[in-house]
Amino acid sequence: MLLPGERIDQLFADDIQIIQSKEVFSFSIDAVLLANFPKLPKKGVVVDLCAGNGAVGLFASRKTDARIIQIELQTRLANMGQRSIQLNQLEQQMIMIELDLKKATTAIKPDSVDLVLCNPPYFKELPTSQKNPNPHLAIARHEIHTTLTEVVEVSSKLLKTNGRLAMVHRPDRFLDILHAMEAADIAPKRVRFVYPKVGKEANALLIEGIKQGKKDGFRVLSPLFTYDEENNYLPEMKAMLYGN
Amino acid sequence: MLLPGERIDQLFADDIQIIQSKEVFSFSIDAVLLANFPKLPKKGVVVDLCAGNGAVGLFASRKTDARIIQIELQTRLANMGQRSIQLNQLEQQMIMIELDLKKATTAIKPDSVDLVLCNPPYFKELPTSQKNPNPHLAIARHEIHTTLTEVVEVSSKLLKTNGRLAMVHRPDRFLDILHAMEAADIAPKRVRFVYPKVGKEANALLIEGIKQGKKDGFRVLSPLFTYDEENNYLPEMKAMLYGN
Repeated sequence: MLLPGERIDQLFADDIQIIQSKEVFSFSIDAVLLANFPKLPKKGVVVDLCAGNGAVGLFASRKTDARIIQIELQTRLANMGQRSIQLNQLEQQMIMIELDLKKATTAIKPDSVDLVLCNPPYFKELPTSQKNPNPHLAIARHEIHTTLTEVVEVSSKLLKTNGRLAMVHRPDRFLDILHAMEAADIAPKRVRFVYPKVGKEANALLIEGIKQGKKDGFRVLSPLFTYDEENNYLPEMKAMLYGN
Repeated sequence: MLLPGERIDQLFADDIQIIQSKEVFSFSIDAVLLANFPKLPKKGVVVDLCAGNGAVGLFASRKTDARIIQIELQTRLANMGQRSIQLNQLEQQMIMIELDLKKATTAIKPDSVDLVLCNPPYFKELPTSQKNPNPHLAIARHEIHTTLTEVVEVSSKLLKTNGRLAMVHRPDRFLDILHAMEAADIAPKRVRFVYPKVGKEANALLIEGIKQGKKDGFRVLSPLFTYDEENNYLPEMKAMLYGN
């Protein structure tokens, strides 16, 4: 089941095994944060865009009976994700589709999705960008094959009215995220900032918007801190990783 | 020097005495937060819009040699502020002008200001709004005589290129603030969310934008918590109120 260089890691909190590879792709803590951020619908359809090796959808699967459709552009990553679905015997609930998200509506009916989860590439693709020489990682981290605007537009097409988009991203892209959501008729509703430690600037954010939602009632949720002063995970973070 | 119902309060951290009145206007903790948020220019001109009884400008005066011009619409509040300037012997540095901020450019040269500080009315004026029956407080809290858009537009007119606007406001108006700034060519650059306690949603925000600033590099500063679990001020807050 494993290709050369691959290993099986475990997310204890959600009792999920996941196929990873240092050379190709390993999930980050951001995937765990995202899977734990939105209230998951009890049933219906959840789409995981920019799914990578499938971490977000796999972790979310334990918290919902909704059908989970994962979309990943890279053959190698989609293949890892597909095998992780089998490894966890989640074939009844989940499917990994190898597809460019621009074509998502050829595989998923527009206006039909309850929740889109997305951990997109964070970095703008600029002529001056320092990119990872590993193309798998470069594509996952930089806006080479898609952009924030495109991800949000596609999400809006897929979502039903009042369906939700939940994303993890970087604070320095926060204004871009808001602009992209508003341009795609997704009302930003809740944001949670993630700070590495007390006294430090935020290094991640979780945001949720509602398709065709009302434009008022924006909320800034309690801050989430990752580490204590001794670089140990704080209890909320530990619970997401190792369970209670 | 005091009118009936007035008293003199002291902000120990900044060694400022301030004339207040429960019936007319008393400064809130938000004024203290705002006066401590932006880096104050060493010299030049600082404008305090929606100055109320002058708290923000008075507190800021101890941290800068800049000239501080305060603008307040309400005669009664502007008069209190003027007397507090005298009480603290700050007449050489500060002036309180009783003026509708729409007319600010008749008193202050456009494109001349280094920093605008503003603690504006927080609440939208809607037919359904519950307003304070006290007109002084209603005007200070509700967008009766001015709006967020207007405050930001006037700030932009007053500021020189690269001059800064620093505001304190409510998180539920965050998107409106960003829209107003962007419409007035002020690039939002730094935000700090204020949370009453660990584990609670933010109930205030401090935001700084730069007139004609670059649109990238948005930062979410470390969170500020007001109270500990026993409702005592936390050290950072205590230092702003009582000094170190």
